[in-house]
Amino acid sequence: MTTGHIGYMEAALEEARIGLKEGNIPLGSIVILDGEIVGRGRNLVTSQHDVTAHAEVVAIREACAELKKSELSGGVLYTTVEPCPMCCWAILISGIETLVLGARLADLQRYYGEYSVETLMKLTGKSVELVTGVLSAECADTWRQKK
Amino acid sequence: MTTGHIGYMEAALEEARIGLKEGNIPLGSIVILDGEIVGRGRNLVTSQHDVTAHAEVVAIREACAELKKSELSGGVLYTTVEPCPMCCWAILISGIETLVLGARLADLQRYYGEYSVETLMKLTGKSVELVTGVLSAECADTWRQKK
Repeated sequence: MTTGHIGYMEAALEEARIGLKEGNIPLGSIVILDGEIVGRGRNLVTSQHDVTAHAEVVAIREACAELKKSELSGGVLYTTVEPCPMCCWAILISGIETLVLGARLADLQRYYGEYSVETLMKLTGKSVELVTGVLSAECADTWRQKK
Repeated sequence: MTTGHIGYMEAALEEARIGLKEGNIPLGSIVILDGEIVGRGRNLVTSQHDVTAHAEVVAIREACAELKKSELSGGVLYTTVEPCPMCCWAILISGIETLVLGARLADLQRYYGEYSVETLMKLTGKSVELVTGVLSAECADTWRQKK
């Protein structure tokens, strides 16, 4: 784990904290390309009336818009909590190369059957490089502040 | 299969055809609630530079915005081709009650490993009522017109 990972995960945590103030579940993500933040996202499901506005999807959409591209080859996505299957597949089809996780769903006692990033990759045959355990306690604590 | 299913799938096919003219892969979806169309979507990945803008996600987002709700309990989603895992999970978490499919991914020789709506439901333990085979040949033919 490098300083870079911690600094970028702090930026994702900052998104999560802003989301909490706006009345959403505190979850945040950022997308990095060539060392630059090209997308920031936080869960906006409640405040924006959009069940698809999870942090990862919001960050990916912003990165695509910023770069005027429909894919994000070579990108790195940092997210405070392991993504749900919707967000995981968005990451897998976007061309993002590395997924960096804070807390795992299991750390939060959140279970969707046997789902995890790894089991979806196994089911579909699509994969991303996975880095885990970056500020995981802070990410879990932040999620637990949800109303 | 009722007249209703065919009429609604025709509306989804019309979205797919509009998308093709805009330079996208011809895939369309609609969301029905209480017999009314509350969301329409087509694949906008290329034209809008958004890797998450699949027909189902676009239709769900529009329905949520239209209804000013973050969930779509009791809704029915019609889609011209079996959704990818991203869209399938968006459907499963939205509270949509019934998913009506035109073509299956296998009809188009599109495979993501062992993924299907059924295998993702089995993996995650979340489910939706599934209706298949509505205008499937027309839906497959429309998809094959992609550039």
